[in-house]
Parts: sequence; structure tokens; C-alpha cells
Amino acid sequence: MRPDLFELFDLNADLGEGFGRWTLTDDEALLSVVTSANVACGFHAGDPSVMRRVCDLAAERGVRIGAQVSYRDLAGFGRRAMDVPAGELAAEVAYQIGALRVFAEAAGAEVAYVKPHGALYNRTVHDEDQAGAVVAGVRLAGGSLPVLGLPGSRLLDAARDAGLEAVPEAFADRAYTSGGTLVPRGEAHAVVADEDTVVRRSVAFAVDRAVDAVDGTPVAVAARSLCLHGDTPGAARLAARVRQALEEAGVKVGAFA
Amino acid sequence: MRPDLFELFDLNADLGEGFGRWTLTDDEALLSVVTSANVACGFHAGDPSVMRRVCDLAAERGVRIGAQVSYRDLAGFGRRAMDVPAGELAAEVAYQIGALRVFAEAAGAEVAYVKPHGALYNRTVHDEDQAGAVVAGVRLAGGSLPVLGLPGSRLLDAARDAGLEAVPEAFADRAYTSGGTLVPRGEAHAVVADEDTVVRRSVAFAVDRAVDAVDGTPVAVAARSLCLHGDTPGAARLAARVRQALEEAGVKVGAFA
Amino acid sequence: MRPDLFELFDLNADLGEGFGRWTLTDDEALLSVVTSANVACGFHAGDPSVMRRVCDLAAERGVRIGAQVSYRDLAGFGRRAMDVPAGELAAEVAYQIGALRVFAEAAGAEVAYVKPHGALYNRTVHDEDQAGAVVAGVRLAGGSLPVLGLPGSRLLDAARDAGLEAVPEAFADRAYTSGGTLVPRGEAHAVVADEDTVVRRSVAFAVDRAVDAVDGTPVAVAARSLCLHGDTPGAARLAARVRQALEEAGVKVGAFA
Amino acid sequence: MRPDLFELFDLNADLGEGFGRWTLTDDEALLSVVTSANVACGFHAGDPSVMRRVCDLAAERGVRIGAQVSYRDLAGFGRRAMDVPAGELAAEVAYQIGALRVFAEAAGAEVAYVKPHGALYNRTVHDEDQAGAVVAGVRLAGGSLPVLGLPGSRLLDAARDAGLEAVPEAFADRAYTSGGTLVPRGEAHAVVADEDTVVRRSVAFAVDRAVDAVDGTPVAVAARSLCLHGDTPGAARLAARVRQALEEAGVKVGAFA
Repeated sequence: MRPDLFELFDLNADLGEGFGRWTLTDDEALLSVVTSANVACGFHAGDPSVMRRVCDLAAERGVRIGAQVSYRDLAGFGRRAMDVPAGELAAEVAYQIGALRVFAEAAGAEVAYVKPHGALYNRTVHDEDQAGAVVAGVRLAGGSLPVLGLPGSRLLDAARDAGLEAVPEAFADRAYTSGGTLVPRGEAHAVVADEDTVVRRSVAFAVDRAVDAVDGTPVAVAARSLCLHGDTPGAARLAARVRQALEEAGVKVGAFA
Repeated sequence: MRPDLFELFDLNADLGEGFGRWTLTDDEALLSVVTSANVACGFHAGDPSVMRRVCDLAAERGVRIGAQVSYRDLAGFGRRAMDVPAGELAAEVAYQIGALRVFAEAAGAEVAYVKPHGALYNRTVHDEDQAGAVVAGVRLAGGSLPVLGLPGSRLLDAARDAGLEAVPEAFADRAYTSGGTLVPRGEAHAVVADEDTVVRRSVAFAVDRAVDAVDGTPVAVAARSLCLHGDTPGAARLAARVRQALEEAGVKVGAFA
Repeated sequence: MRPDLFELFDLNADLGEGFGRWTLTDDEALLSVVTSANVACGFHAGDPSVMRRVCDLAAERGVRIGAQVSYRDLAGFGRRAMDVPAGELAAEVAYQIGALRVFAEAAGAEVAYVKPHGALYNRTVHDEDQAGAVVAGVRLAGGSLPVLGLPGSRLLDAARDAGLEAVPEAFADRAYTSGGTLVPRGEAHAVVADEDTVVRRSVAFAVDRAVDAVDGTPVAVAARSLCLHGDTPGAARLAARVRQALEEAGVKVGAFA
Repeated sequence: MRPDLFELFDLNADLGEGFGRWTLTDDEALLSVVTSANVACGFHAGDPSVMRRVCDLAAERGVRIGAQVSYRDLAGFGRRAMDVPAGELAAEVAYQIGALRVFAEAAGAEVAYVKPHGALYNRTVHDEDQAGAVVAGVRLAGGSLPVLGLPGSRLLDAARDAGLEAVPEAFADRAYTSGGTLVPRGEAHAVVADEDTVVRRSVAFAVDRAVDAVDGTPVAVAARSLCLHGDTPGAARLAARVRQALEEAGVKVGAFA
């Protein structure tokens, strides 16, 4: 697969992860780098005022707005997997999309895609029931929104089956197995800490559609978007380096949708 | 003012006031009587599954759906007034409308109006700042939704000033002062308990645009909708009696919008 | 095992399962029947006012107060299993016990035991990690409180290992496998609906320390407490019948602790 | 009044103001300076894990632990005044104290005092009903805990009337009127930004029991504790300067209780 097969290579990051008095991400700095903003919708982070502000900023800068839907878990930041029955989960996903849509549209933009957060993201890689529920929630919310997720995940399968666009993403700061899946957090070398390596791998995803697996062998990764993390010190600076390197390598950076 | 000036006389009630395992209102029974359903949006009651079910039922029966917006206060059922800064309150109102809209539209209907709940309803009778914030939230949510409220309230003033339709409502089970305002709860005779009286007064609101005040003098009440309470035993039965009496008096019962 | 080996046979029920405007259980009626009250502590149900009222009533009637600890999940009533890390879960359990203790002690009583609720109860039957976390939370809360749970559960094992009293309970309205475990909800015949059968089985648990399994064979169940459900219509009346039948059979009904 | 009338001069700060993934205060640094830690109890900030960690740290360093009780308002960080009925408010206050007590006692310490947070602090300066409710909550929680608050507030009056110790505090970074009350936030010069001035005024409170009012006249302020803010950059460093200056001026710094 060659990069010219896709018009554009997308950069996405989680934004608006504050709540009330608390903030986490440097939204302003990241919005000058990424092309897609995964905006928290109030279930793991993101109160209405934060959501409004992030949507306004994103619209101003032409950054695409996506709904980052989550389990209802403020105390755990959506990182604790929950056995939510499918019907309830679908309704919760739709609720979050609808709430965000108000602020996206008030800013003259729209909710253009959906991406699950944290434990819901991880769970729907393998859990067919919850993957189907998330997709049911997206359909309930109307408008045939694309779903952003891990290549090979049940989530993207379910999205495709439902006639939605399934957008695979890669992680520049995560190690891959030779099978093309992520090395689980907690295992050795799961996270790529060296910034030069992160930048180099980012370009590899976009140009070669491949990355070096943890055992050194190259492995194909079909990604149309790259997920950048925004909740660590220096995150915005690293994101800017990644974008610059992509552009210097001739990659056209732009929202996937 | 004569009844023929308005095409239709509306009956509204608060619905979907459950949350998770808990229920409060007999939604099914009330939806066969009222013409407008004030649906809780998750801040004082109403989880996404409840909201979905009520919207489906309302759409099926042709009952108009309104967003009953509230302070964020599950523990107090939205009955504890809060000093929410105007900007935050507007965003919270818009969030709730957007969330409900998903379920209304999935049911083939729409959110057709907005009515504040509990303490927010009472506060915006007099509090210009919060009344303005609620209206700002309605406008933020787009679509120029009508606002349902108390005649003479700051809320309806603010709605009119903002170019929104302001729909005044009456309360069949509340006593009125000779000035046309409600006798405050807590005062003697504030609530009309006798069911025959409630029925008789309901007809008076619709036909005479007036009601007997607590001192016995008739007082004009310009209402296009009548609020029926749904959270007491026998509420659905009384609501049905009111509707029947209205129809027998020749009043055309139908949604205001 | 013979009934005389234990001084007393306990009857427990979940109480105080309201929140704000909502109620679920007929606390007053049940408190005149049971000897142990599993009081919700605010995470799945039970706001501070409800907790206070239930503790006052329980103390008045000499009913033992236990902390019914739960996942933090109001929207799911604690019925959605959550992957809460052990350290967080222990702290959440301790928090709930401490909060309830204030009201128990203000009523002149004490928190005398701990019982997990809903999904946490079910999960700690098999999940060693979370079972250990619940017990760690009980120990963090001080005072060596007994733990009420399913015979053979990891929870009771962990309690024993930590030097806490492990109190096994039986369910009069649930079917048992010939191995002595509960027939999972969702399977056929999992719930015993017939009230006469419930009463008869209750006596069997107390007198014979055994019950007829779903395949008809008798199976030993070592229970010192019987769990009665309080959230269905007629629950309080059935509970009263169970207690009367136990007393008529010569069983001494009283709190286990 | 002379400083030698009091054995010790206390320094207090709000701590543990994180929640889940979010943090606010540099708890470790502040705990090496202050003598009393106002620990958030979960209603405006402070999840059980944070509460546990702060209590452990405070106990280790011999810092006194107080319950910083709040309205139930995570989204507003307890800064939005709420009309909570007195009975509910008392129960909510007691609940928070009880929850914190578990962690204080597990750390070998105790909850030694109570201080309201944010809007509840401000409201109980003037609102007799809520001041009484907070004190009722403190009494419900048992143990006759001292109450920390503003000199002249209804809260301290109510505490005294109930037989509790009322501990007046001063604010080094807030301007005072010539009547000895705080210049309201929002008015000009309400906040003292200059760090040298903050340090100088801190010593004045302890040594002279007085401060220069906003009009230049000296005004008596009877404070046994000084409130330091911990949620701004540089807060911990400024707190350390204040403590050093107090000690150099011969003030014995120590917990009031």
C-alpha cells in the first residue's frame, strides 16, 4: 500500500479532558497541530463549558471534531472497563454524541466522527457485544458517522458491518507485536519513550504503512490516522515535531473525513 | 382574550423522571393524555435509556417532546437552587437539549420546546441573570425553540427579547393570588387538592382564560398550556379526567407548537 | 451440621435503596422483620438523608446495621461489573463504611458487618483480586468487621484469610445446583417464584442446613443468614411469612454477629 | 490581645483537591509547611484514593487533618452556592466527615476539625440556616470537632452556641475592610498579589493580631490560624516563606487543636 492511495494523513488527539476546576490537556497548543480533535463528552471528562470552548477553538482552526465517547466513570477517567448491557451502552453513546453536537454546531462545525475512550476503546477491540453497542449508539445518533479505532478491532468490524466508515489509526508511542497488534501496557517495552523514535515511527506509519515490531521485524499497519497523546508534559511540542517531520517527508496532513 | 384566539390548548407533564433502577412517573399512562411531554435530560433525572424509551413512546403517540432542563443535581432532583454562573448554565442547558435531541430524532420526532425544571423554573421567574442564561442555552442549541414557563416570568421576557416564542402555562392544582401569580408553596391553600376543583379550574383556564384567586376574585391567566403533575398516585387518572372535561367543554386539546 | 450449633439464624435484606426523590424498598416494613439491614452507602443508592433515616429506624428496632458497599455506579444501580484496580476499590469500600458509620453511631448503634452489593457481590464470588480488595477495604476501615457473602466464594475465603469472620448466607428465592452454588440468573428455573416454596426452603436452610437442588437432590448449604429481597411488591409480606415459619419451626431468629 | 495568649499559631491549607485522573494542589510540598490540612471529602474534590494518600502523608508528617466539607458539586468545585435544606445539608456534612475519618484513623491519626469549602464557606458567613446545618452535621458526626471559619461568621457563632470550639482564621492574601471583614472578590484590591506583602501581613496577623485595612487604617483580626492557598503556581514556595517569616518573628507555629 502506498501513501498516495490516501489523499490525506490524519493526526488525532484527545482534547477537552478537563472537568470543572480541573484541566489536563493543553488544548490550545494541540489544536494548532492536530487535524482531528477527540472531544470528551462529559462521561469520563469534559463538562459543558469545556466542550463548548474546545469546539469553538477547533472550529476556528479548522480542526475536525469527533465525539470521544466513554463509560460513565468520572472517578476512573473512563479507564475502568464496565459490563454495561448493550442497550444501555448504545443509549449512553448516543447521548454523548448528541450533547457534543450542540457545541460543534454552535461553532459552525459538526461532529464528524466517533472514537471510544480508554477502557471502552480497549474493550471493543475484542468484545463483540460492546463493539456492536457502540456502533448501535452511533447509528442511533444519526448521520452515519465514521468510527475511529484500532485496525482489526471488533469495533471497526462492527462499524463496517453497519455501513459506517471504519477508520484505522496507529499509535506512534506504542510498541507493536509482529502480528500487528499493540504490545499490552504493563509488558516490557510497551511504550516508546524516546521522542526521536516516536517521530521516526510516525513517518513510517504514513509513508511505509508499516512499523518495526518489538522483535525488530517490519509489520504492516494500515492506518489513516495517527493518535498523539496530549496529557503528558511536552506532549504538544512532540506533536508539533511529528507533524513537521510528516510534512517534510511529503505527507499531506489533513482530517480523514 | 377568547379561546378561539388560539387554535389549540396544550396539556404538558413532566415525564421520564426515572434514573437507572428508579422510576417515578407513569409515563405510559400520561402519554395517552398529554399533548406535550417535558422529558428529563439527565441532570435531575432521566438516564439515556429512560430518555430513549420516553421519546419512542411519545413519538408513537404523537405527543410533542420538550427538553426539561435542570441544574446538575441528581441528589436533590433539581429542587435545590444553585448559583451557577451564566456562562456555565447556558452550556449546561444546551448540553441537555442536544442529548435529548438524539433520542427525539431517532424516534422520528424532534425536540420542540424547552421548559426548566424545579428550582431552575422557580429561580428564573425572578432571576434575570439565570433567565437570560437559560435562553442563551436554548439559542446555543439552535433552532429557535419555544420556551414554556410562567406568565410574567423573567424567563418568558428573556425568551421574547431573544426572538423565541414564549408560551405561558397555568397550574390546575396551584392557588393563584389576585395578582395572577402562584401562591408560594408552604403558604396555606397553596395547593389545590380536591380533584373536582382541579378539573373545574382546568376548564376555566382554557375557556375563560381566568381562574378564581385565593381571595375569591376572578383573575385573568393567559395560558396556552396547562401543567399536569405526574408524580403522585392517581396523577394519570386525574389527568385523563381533566382532558375529558376540556374536550366536553369544546376545547381543542393539542400541542401548542 | 445441626441448627443448635448456632445460637441464632439471621435474616438480612437490602435497605435504604432510595436516592434523592426516589425510593425502592419499603424500609419500615422490612425493618420489622429482618435482623440485619444491608444499608446502601451512596455509591449505588442511598444518599446521606436516606442513610440517616434507615440507621435511625434500624437502631430503634434493634436491627443490626451492615454496610452494603458497591461499585460507584448510580446509573447502573451497582449492577454493572467494573474493573476497578484493587487499591482504588479498597479505598472506595472503606469510604462507604466510614460514611455509614457516622449515621449508625449517631443512632446509638454501629456498623456491624459488610456485604457487597450487586455486581461487586457477584464478581467477588470468583475474582480473587477484587475479593481481596474488598477485604482490604474492610480492614482499612478498622474494627474487624464480619463479611457476609456466598458460601465458597473467594470473598469469604479472603475474609477468613485476613482474620475476619466470614458469614455464609443462603437465598430462599434462588435455585441451587447439586454442587451447592446458585443457578445463574438467566438460566431456566434460576428464580423461585412460588411463595410457599420460598417459605419452605427458608425453613430447610435453617433447620436442615440443606435445600433441594434444581435436579431434586438434596444439597448441604451452610448458611448462618438468609437473604430476603425487599425491592419487589409483596416483598415485606413474604419476608414476614418466612420469619413466622422459621419461628414456628423452632428456629431462633437473630442477628449473626 | 497578645500572641502569647495562644500557645500556637496555625497554618492551614486546602489539600487533596484532585479527583480521579486530575490533580490541583502540590500536596507533598504543602504538607511540609502547614500544620493543618483541610482535606477534600469527595463532594467537590477528593476521591477515596486521594483522601487515603493525603491522610497517610499528613499523619507521617504530624500535620493535623481536618474535613473540608462542601456542597455536592464536582462540576462546580463546590463554588456554586446551593439551597440545600438544612436536614439534607447536615446529613451531607456528616457523611463527608465519616468518610474522611476512615482514612485519618487508618493512618493512625484522626479528623481533628471541620472547615467548609468554597460556596458553603461563603454562604455560612451570613446564612444562619445553613451555618446551623453545618454545625448540626458536625455534631451528628460525633466527637465535638472544632470548626474553622471566618471571625464574626454565623458559622462560628453557631459552633459556639452548640458547644463546639470556634477557631477564627485570617487570609494573608485577601484585603480587609476597616470593619474587619474581607473585601469581596470582584472588588478592586480584593486580592493581595505581592508576595512580600503577603508575608508581612502573615506576621502581622500572628504578632499584632491586626492588619492594615484597605483604607490604610489598622484593624484588629483575632485569628488563631492563617489560611494559605495551595492551588496556584508558586503556592508551596510562598507558604514556606510565610512559615519561615513567622518563625523568625518568634511565633510558635503549630496546629490549633
